[in-house]
Amino acid sequence: MQGTATDFRQSRENPLERSSQTAILLLYCTDRPGLVRVVADFIFRHGGNILNLNQHQDNHSGLFFMRVEWSLMGFSLNEQQFKQAFSTLAGNEDFRWRVAFGNTKPSVAVFVSRYQHCLLDLLYRHRIGELDCHIALVVSNHEDARPLVEFYGLPFFHTPVTRETKMAAETSQLQLLQRYGVDLVVLARYMQVLSPDFVSRYPDRIINVHHSFLPAFTGAKPYHAAHERGVKLIGATSHYVNDDLDEGAIIEQDVVRVSHRDDPEVLIEKGRVLERVVLSRAVRWHLQQRVLCYGNRTVVFE
Amino acid sequence: MQGTATDFRQSRENPLERSSQTAILLLYCTDRPGLVRVVADFIFRHGGNILNLNQHQDNHSGLFFMRVEWSLMGFSLNEQQFKQAFSTLAGNEDFRWRVAFGNTKPSVAVFVSRYQHCLLDLLYRHRIGELDCHIALVVSNHEDARPLVEFYGLPFFHTPVTRETKMAAETSQLQLLQRYGVDLVVLARYMQVLSPDFVSRYPDRIINVHHSFLPAFTGAKPYHAAHERGVKLIGATSHYVNDDLDEGAIIEQDVVRVSHRDDPEVLIEKGRVLERVVLSRAVRWHLQQRVLCYGNRTVVFE
Amino acid sequence: MQGTATDFRQSRENPLERSSQTAILLLYCTDRPGLVRVVADFIFRHGGNILNLNQHQDNHSGLFFMRVEWSLMGFSLNEQQFKQAFSTLAGNEDFRWRVAFGNTKPSVAVFVSRYQHCLLDLLYRHRIGELDCHIALVVSNHEDARPLVEFYGLPFFHTPVTRETKMAAETSQLQLLQRYGVDLVVLARYMQVLSPDFVSRYPDRIINVHHSFLPAFTGAKPYHAAHERGVKLIGATSHYVNDDLDEGAIIEQDVVRVSHRDDPEVLIEKGRVLERVVLSRAVRWHLQQRVLCYGNRTVVFE
Amino acid sequence: MQGTATDFRQSRENPLERSSQTAILLLYCTDRPGLVRVVADFIFRHGGNILNLNQHQDNHSGLFFMRVEWSLMGFSLNEQQFKQAFSTLAGNEDFRWRVAFGNTKPSVAVFVSRYQHCLLDLLYRHRIGELDCHIALVVSNHEDARPLVEFYGLPFFHTPVTRETKMAAETSQLQLLQRYGVDLVVLARYMQVLSPDFVSRYPDRIINVHHSFLPAFTGAKPYHAAHERGVKLIGATSHYVNDDLDEGAIIEQDVVRVSHRDDPEVLIEKGRVLERVVLSRAVRWHLQQRVLCYGNRTVVFE
Repeated sequence: MQGTATDFRQSRENPLERSSQTAILLLYCTDRPGLVRVVADFIFRHGGNILNLNQHQDNHSGLFFMRVEWSLMGFSLNEQQFKQAFSTLAGNEDFRWRVAFGNTKPSVAVFVSRYQHCLLDLLYRHRIGELDCHIALVVSNHEDARPLVEFYGLPFFHTPVTRETKMAAETSQLQLLQRYGVDLVVLARYMQVLSPDFVSRYPDRIINVHHSFLPAFTGAKPYHAAHERGVKLIGATSHYVNDDLDEGAIIEQDVVRVSHRDDPEVLIEKGRVLERVVLSRAVRWHLQQRVLCYGNRTVVFE
Repeated sequence: MQGTATDFRQSRENPLERSSQTAILLLYCTDRPGLVRVVADFIFRHGGNILNLNQHQDNHSGLFFMRVEWSLMGFSLNEQQFKQAFSTLAGNEDFRWRVAFGNTKPSVAVFVSRYQHCLLDLLYRHRIGELDCHIALVVSNHEDARPLVEFYGLPFFHTPVTRETKMAAETSQLQLLQRYGVDLVVLARYMQVLSPDFVSRYPDRIINVHHSFLPAFTGAKPYHAAHERGVKLIGATSHYVNDDLDEGAIIEQDVVRVSHRDDPEVLIEKGRVLERVVLSRAVRWHLQQRVLCYGNRTVVFE
Repeated sequence: MQGTATDFRQSRENPLERSSQTAILLLYCTDRPGLVRVVADFIFRHGGNILNLNQHQDNHSGLFFMRVEWSLMGFSLNEQQFKQAFSTLAGNEDFRWRVAFGNTKPSVAVFVSRYQHCLLDLLYRHRIGELDCHIALVVSNHEDARPLVEFYGLPFFHTPVTRETKMAAETSQLQLLQRYGVDLVVLARYMQVLSPDFVSRYPDRIINVHHSFLPAFTGAKPYHAAHERGVKLIGATSHYVNDDLDEGAIIEQDVVRVSHRDDPEVLIEKGRVLERVVLSRAVRWHLQQRVLCYGNRTVVFE
Repeated sequence: MQGTATDFRQSRENPLERSSQTAILLLYCTDRPGLVRVVADFIFRHGGNILNLNQHQDNHSGLFFMRVEWSLMGFSLNEQQFKQAFSTLAGNEDFRWRVAFGNTKPSVAVFVSRYQHCLLDLLYRHRIGELDCHIALVVSNHEDARPLVEFYGLPFFHTPVTRETKMAAETSQLQLLQRYGVDLVVLARYMQVLSPDFVSRYPDRIINVHHSFLPAFTGAKPYHAAHERGVKLIGATSHYVNDDLDEGAIIEQDVVRVSHRDDPEVLIEKGRVLERVVLSRAVRWHLQQRVLCYGNRTVVFE
């Protein structure tokens, strides 16, 4: 390394304190020179100190992707003002963007059916502070999860679903989401397919976990299908929900080794660990504004 | 996402072509507002388009780390001019930095003893274009690797080392490195400890692979020690070499599962795969200017 | 494959039903010819059908290790009778052995301090049937875990520990273990060191989880030590407890990748997933009679 | 553990020496009581000492699977005699079985096209003794690999394949296999589909590597398809070849993490490491008689 001989680890006297208050901007647009400079300049001019910036140009699509997080200490704009001021710039530059100020916690609804391992994991992680959100409510088509949800002091709503009542159930679910001002819906092994209408109201804001390594074993009973095919690894996939079942943009995947001795029941059991890990990561990354969805793909900023 | 409704994937007509000619700047300094802007502005003013920028502030140390890669297409400075122009800026800002222009390939020396699996892996990867460098020469304290090296058309030098001749051997090795203008030394299972004098001439430019998951099992015979302790995973570690054996800054590590049935010979065999993977990654990342070493730690930019 | 052309998958009419009632025998001794035959013959003569047999000779130590599971359907001996009858054989053959009949569920005590992630995981897995045991009680030196334990309907005992009261606390803990007929003690992030006297009463029957990849980072604050050393993977280890802290026989280990961006708090968070997975596997394998401990090592039968 | 207090690690004076000469028997049949005993008894009566025995009953199919390895030191039958003697027993018991005596090395042919990474890995592993076989010849539809193969001192045959000459090429390839007494054919990125007639002559004796995590991304250009779908892990699969392309029984699979920054070329590069590891393991396990193929599935004995 060129430069002065200062040992930075010794010399600093006033280490910068990372404020719990930061803002994060995600954006993408067609690439061209000067984009980093324009955004960095905007933040600097309003008194922000950039803590993390991650940018890359995708050669394949010619797109520019960026995530930037800055300290709100000394930043002169609040969320409302930022949105107003940045809109003008973004309009000129043709950005697609979203911003999140750390002092506003998003509101999350968890949907669940009978299996509670993913729900339990989310509730516990939320309790100990790993998930930076409010879990506003839990919705289920069964009563099974009520005791667990109430143990954690959260509202539980039972919206039974049959073929006949499905539309009515969705209507009441949507009312709940609206009442609680929900920003993100997490399907934690919710075994009902949401209607296109429901999905269209929360674009890139419904996260599901599928119990296979997509695109392998779409549809029902993936562990049985995996066993039948004799694979040596099984997987789980978290993804945004869109109209095509199991076809939404993938956020995270992971796998675990299985052996010829493992019957489908063992696969189900091994898969439970995967499912909760893969779903938790996706929810966490979404809440940390790390996930940018474009077309059927995601950019997940580290 | 807010913004216009343009579908970027449809609309672009002239996708940006990524030039094989890019430059990469690595730098770190005490964090403060405006650093991204200063560097982005410098690159923009000289006609560069940033392709990748990765920056983060380390809250623990208060340091600012950055890697930025930009296209040389249309960039108005050559390497020499860049260094001159950027030095002034860097001096004012107290940066520690280094730059690499893609049109200059670094020169690499590989040191090896008897085991050739890491050497073989490096030579093959180099041949098929995975390692962006010239392998200038291979140096060994044994003759074993000569046929392999000559098969790949590279110069091979035998510098036998005994306790008595060690200093003389190092002298002739250093002369070779100088003659071939070597930028990076890779110890591909080279079983000799280099003297502090040798090491000091290539700071953060000698990469070694140690056949354990450091800091566990330092020293000789780590696989036997791992077997003795009954661990369930074995590892390998690539690191920069400094004066303290096995204590240099770690670049990469990986592990593989072992079982009670595996005797030390099986561990050695399983470890061979690890060693070559872990060493190759480290060399590759170093050559791609992804590794920034500070104190006894590395930042590895993805 | 030689043999007849029968398609076994088509031809069988009465697939064997695996009884939920099986017995498992673990044994080891000095290797010599005929051992498999002797044991298989013993089981056969008493009407047992072997479902799984796993045996290997360890060339290093000259020992013979075996795990065999057979159906109790039609087996003529109960647990008491088996122990009597097999003792004679085992004495002649110089076996070290233990047997578990599936109709007797072992009794488990979980010790915990403040962190509840491992406890939660064990309680949930137990609830849904993944752990084949009774969790008889939970013991803690803090009150924090009481609500969770009582939610699962289990007895919770608070035994506060200070330097002065440590011996008295252990005495009351040992009384609890005796009262509840405990077969296995699980230390689920229990932050107290047990005395040699306590440990000696449950040889190979106390399982701990240490939050590092042993033997690296023994002792306190392993995540901070790992961060300081700049490792690229962090690990967790479950092991039997013996007199030497962090030196007991390892049952299971796993690792997760970390980056330069992860400060110690992030390592702690990533480690929580590891710890619970690694501890759950160890407990599960112990309960399935898959773990045979000899000297400072374990054989873990798949 | 019950039993005597002997410390086996201290007391043994004449540790058993594992002979390099062992025999391995693989068998399966419909499960019933007494099977282990019958085989163990057979081996014992002819003077063999069992070193490894791995057996399990598959509850799903009702089948009994077994792999047993024993020392030939003192064993009274040679391979020919064993086959004769065991045939009678096997006929009575309706076994499907095969045996391999360690003193006969199998003969292997490697087929390759242009990419040499898998071939290189096999040749090197063979050279250093990791693959217990003779590599009898290398066959290719291109000349590219000739120098590498000749460097390793092995016969290389160029059998060009066009649509018109495909049948003639296969005929000459089959003649080569016969001439060299080939037991196993390894397709090390051989980019031609073998005809059903060719495949039928080597049932469960042709191993291929497919560059995806099957059953995802069958067919051509799997890395491009994986990129298009936006998966977060890519995989490779080694399998026996049968008539249905990419549908043969899977032997081994593995995956590696990819990111949104990785374009298809990077996936190809990351995949190369996977492919060679996954293929080498499959070949190695096959040669160690660890793989038993039934229907479209494999049992891989550890």
